[in-house]
Parts: sequence; structure tokens; C-alpha cells
Amino acid sequence: MATKARANNLIFRPHFKTHQSAVIGEWFREAGVSCITVSSVTMAEYFADAGWQDILIAFPVNILEIDQINRVAQKINLSLLLESIETAEYIAKKLKHKVGIYLKIDTGNHRTGIASENTDAIQRVLDYIQNFSNLSFIGFLTHSGNTYSAKSRVEILSIHRGSVNQLHNLVSSFKNTNLNPIISIGDTPSCSIVTDFRGVDEIRPGNFIFYDVMQYRLGSCTVNDIAVALACPVVAKHPERNEIVIYGGAVHLSKESIIDADEMSNYGLIVKFHKNGWDIPIPKTYVRALSQEHGIIHTTEQQFSKIHVGDIVGVLPVHSCLTAHQMKEYRTFDDKRIQKMH
Amino acid sequence: MATKARANNLIFRPHFKTHQSAVIGEWFREAGVSCITVSSVTMAEYFADAGWQDILIAFPVNILEIDQINRVAQKINLSLLLESIETAEYIAKKLKHKVGIYLKIDTGNHRTGIASENTDAIQRVLDYIQNFSNLSFIGFLTHSGNTYSAKSRVEILSIHRGSVNQLHNLVSSFKNTNLNPIISIGDTPSCSIVTDFRGVDEIRPGNFIFYDVMQYRLGSCTVNDIAVALACPVVAKHPERNEIVIYGGAVHLSKESIIDADEMSNYGLIVKFHKNGWDIPIPKTYVRALSQEHGIIHTTEQQFSKIHVGDIVGVLPVHSCLTAHQMKEYRTFDDKRIQKMH
Repeated sequence: MATKARANNLIFRPHFKTHQSAVIGEWFREAGVSCITVSSVTMAEYFADAGWQDILIAFPVNILEIDQINRVAQKINLSLLLESIETAEYIAKKLKHKVGIYLKIDTGNHRTGIASENTDAIQRVLDYIQNFSNLSFIGFLTHSGNTYSAKSRVEILSIHRGSVNQLHNLVSSFKNTNLNPIISIGDTPSCSIVTDFRGVDEIRPGNFIFYDVMQYRLGSCTVNDIAVALACPVVAKHPERNEIVIYGGAVHLSKESIIDADEMSNYGLIVKFHKNGWDIPIPKTYVRALSQEHGIIHTTEQQFSKIHVGDIVGVLPVHSCLTAHQMKEYRTFDDKRIQKMH
Repeated sequence: MATKARANNLIFRPHFKTHQSAVIGEWFREAGVSCITVSSVTMAEYFADAGWQDILIAFPVNILEIDQINRVAQKINLSLLLESIETAEYIAKKLKHKVGIYLKIDTGNHRTGIASENTDAIQRVLDYIQNFSNLSFIGFLTHSGNTYSAKSRVEILSIHRGSVNQLHNLVSSFKNTNLNPIISIGDTPSCSIVTDFRGVDEIRPGNFIFYDVMQYRLGSCTVNDIAVALACPVVAKHPERNEIVIYGGAVHLSKESIIDADEMSNYGLIVKFHKNGWDIPIPKTYVRALSQEHGIIHTTEQQFSKIHVGDIVGVLPVHSCLTAHQMKEYRTFDDKRIQKMH
């Protein structure tokens, strides 16, 4: 991803909410990364303490955290995400240090952000923040989370192109000002698949560090690119229905499922560990259901006989960010433990 | 629940995985509780350290945790949940201290446990464990989790009665032995609704300490009985679709949703806090979607205008056990902080 960003002359500001680990952060630094994205003030503080000097909190400012924001802004180059005049007014009054400001623009995902066509509202926020030297406008940020429900790579490319066009039109409508905004995009499907980044200045993907079953289904990666698995002990077997119970439930894997080719809800694919990693997923074998601590694996008769109580199987998560969030640390196949936030 | 258990001459062994707090555990002790249920060895150790002397781990034994199990079994009266001869053989060899043994029986939930009609498999485990003085058979345990998908109170009662009848038949089939097993049931819907506990010796409900939107929908409680809410800051508003964005996502609320009366997926109901608690949920207002940190509340035009950026709203969770698990502590309306496991 770093190579791709360099080749396309993009600022690479990876999202660290996927791994939440200062140790893994160092791998990014070795790849030349110097600016990052996080999703909370606490996470910004954690990575600031780990030596990161340029951090964007890509979540709408929670004004109730202004004291903690001021504490972090004193230490590093902090950027915040704005999407309303109310929040702009609040932080303009309360900020004690200079911060960068991104405006969150909704280009079709409809989760949050100001609609890209609502230029009046956008202009109002821009006009307002120009009066405050502590608020330094950087650019327009979008997250095309709607690529996650795309049915094909073509549809992902189309969503991406539509999104960039909207942001480009937005920039054009303000072109007589001296703002010179950057355009920042974030979703991993687009960043993985797109080869033509015209109109984009910055990318903020995070999930690609591990990828997951959802990204594999979307075509963002191959199944071999999935780089994290939840290690789950087998605690029971049910031959009458070819089901295997693992100690690994909703509190470990979290919420995300996909509908697989057989129209079944699927909370993860199953791999067997060997000394240096794992093989491709076991065919026709998946997590069918999750309760608080139980995971129920459905498999075939043939595969059923090869898995035993006391084995540890790997679950490739549907959404690695959520699964990694639940865990206290990572373990590598050379038996290192990698600490993370918890 | 303690009163109900006493009135019906039941052993009351509440499940502490819902609250995971030694402080809240003391409230149970004040209500006369002396034996408890947990869902992991780590949780057993936490509550053993908090002075609990009789703890059942109601999750199939994970044989990989045998060292930790031995450590807890040395300190307190520990009971384990068995459901296979393989696990029985393993722990028979490795246990250094006496433990109680419950057999997990599947009476129709089909998550895990030996099917109640599979008397051969049950007999085999019972015969085996009788040879080991460290394994002291206590009884048959079931969790009728299928009550959670019941459509009515009548259906819950019917599932409960069917389950107890199966366990009763099972006990009868072994009546010439000197085992004298108890029958232990666990699901909160049955424990809340059932008034006739004939055939039951022990109840293990947990969720009732807080209840939640799912239990309310099932008829286990009224909406006023819901005793926990996730406090979420409002970070953005979208008048064009009457939606409000809160800082409260999948990593806070966890996975569970219900389908509401309008066929919409619903991750929680919204309440307004006042000095001493909260009012009934705001009408036609619910969490429509969750991503990692974002919660999207859908509301009416009228209610929309009453909620502002910077407010804290309360989300009554769909499944309070999962939501409470995610949090580090509870706060009360007299501004106390209640610590829990994390």
C-alpha cells in the first residue's frame, strides 16, 4: 500500500484502528509512513506517546472530550474531523492549540458527513473556521463505506469514481478562495482495487494490514492475504450435525457476518495452524453462529473427523478490525507477543 | 429472582457473566446467594479472589486451561461442565483437586451438549467418571437458549416444560443408580416467566440483573426493568433523514440486534438521562446501524429537534451481557463508579 501511494504521489495516512498496536506501527514507520489516522482521542494519545507526530482523528469531534483533545494537540500535529457549524463554534472557543481541520463529506455512504451537494453548509463552516488561527483547514475527507456492500470490483470502482467526482466538483465550487483543500479517501476496497487515483491527494486505508473474509469476498485481496486469525480451542463435537463448538464467541469475534454462497450467515472461515502459519481455509467449513462465548463451526463429515477436542483452530474473521479490537495482544508464529491497546 | 427461587425451593446459582463485577456480586450476597455461575476459568478466578467459594464454570471444559483450572480448584468448590468422554478422560488424568461435575444436556437448543435422548453417551460418561474420586457428579444442566427465539410467553413456557420433561425422563432412566442428579436450568426468559418449577432443582439466570431490549420484547420484563444503558455522546445530526450519530458503535454495543415491529433491524432503544435515571424510551427512536465506533440513531422529526450535538443519550442495549462485557466500569446516578473485569 505504501508503494502504491508513492507511485501515485499520494499522502499515505494509514488508519491504525485496525491493529491498535505501537509495535505494528513501527512496521509502517519502516515503510516510510509519518502521518496516521485513528478513531478516538484515546487512540491518538496512545500513538502520540509512541512517537507519532501527525495524527488525524477521523471521527466527528466529540466536544465532551475537549480537555483530552487539548492535551494531545499540545504534544503533536493533531487534525480533527468537523461536520457541523455547532461543533466548529464549540472547538473554536475551547481549543488552546492549533489543529488541522478536515471536513467530513458524505458522497453517498449516508453514515455521517455533510452531503457533498450541500455547498451552503460546507461554505458556512469554511467561512467560520477561517476566523480562527487555531483551526487550519486541510481538506475534504470522505469514507465510501458503501463499497462494502458492492457486488463486484466494477461496482467498487464506480462508487470510488463517483465519490471522487463529487469531491472534485466541491473543490471546483470553492476554487476562487485560497483554501487549496486536499481530497482524502479511506475505504480499503477502493484503496486496494483502484489503480487510477486521479483527483485524490491522500488515502487512509487501515484494514489492509490484516485484510479479512469480507475484503476477500469483495475482491480487495486473495484469501492468502488474510494475515490474522483468532486462535480458538475446540471444546465439543457434534457428529450428528457435523458441528464443532469452539471457545470463541461474540465477545471474541464481534458482530460482523456475511452471507455466503449457500445463503448461510457466516462469521468466519476456519484454518488449521502449522508451524509457520496456516493453510487455505478448510473447504465448506465456517462459523455458523456465535453466542457470548460459543462459536459453532459447521463442516463436512470428512473434515469433521480431522478436528478434535483440545485442538486449536484458526478463525479468519469477517471483519478483522472488530476482532483485533477485542483482543489484548497478537502472537506470531515465531512465538512473539505483540502488545496493543486494550 | 432470589425470592422466587426461595419460594420454589430452588438452588439459586446466578450467572455472573452478565455483570462481571465483584461489587455487584456483593449485592447478590446480601440477597442470600452463596453459589454462582461463570463462563470462563478467568472469571472463576476473579470471583474466587472476591471471596466466592462455590463456582460453576458453565462452559464446556477447555482442556488447554487445565493448569488454571487446577489453580482455582485448589482454592474453592469448583464445578465443571462436561459433555464428552474425551474431555472426561483428559480431566480425570490431569485434575489434582476434587471438582463437581455437571453434564451438559441438549434439550432442543442444538448449540452444544449431549442430546437428552442419547442415553448411551450419557451413561458412558457417568460410568466413566464414577471411577474417579476427584470427579463428583452433581447433575444435568441445560440452557434452553431456544426461548430467545420464541414468539410468545406461551411458547417460552412450552419450551421450558418440554425441556424439563426431557431431563426428567433422563433422570428416570438412571433411577436405579445412586446418582441422585439435580436438574439445573439457566435461560432468563424461562426463569423470569415460569411460575411452576416442578422438576427443577437449580436455576442459573444472569441477564435479569440488567435485563435488556431483547428480554423486554420476549416478555421477560417490562421496559422499566431495564437497568443498564450505554451513555453515548451525540457527535452529529442529519436533519434530512432524521438521523443522529453517536459515539457508540459495534465495539461498545456489540453484535445483537432484533427485528422491530416495523421490520427494521434495531440495535437498541434510546432514553434521555435525568438526574436520577432515565425516562421511558423515546418513541420511534432506535439505533438503526452500527459500524466500529459510529451508532446511527433514527428518530422522528419532532424528537430530532430535542437532541443536540454534545448531549449524552442512553442506549438500552439489545443484549446487555455483551454490551456490559465491552465496558470497563459502570457509573451510577449517584456518581459512583463500579469496577468490573476487563
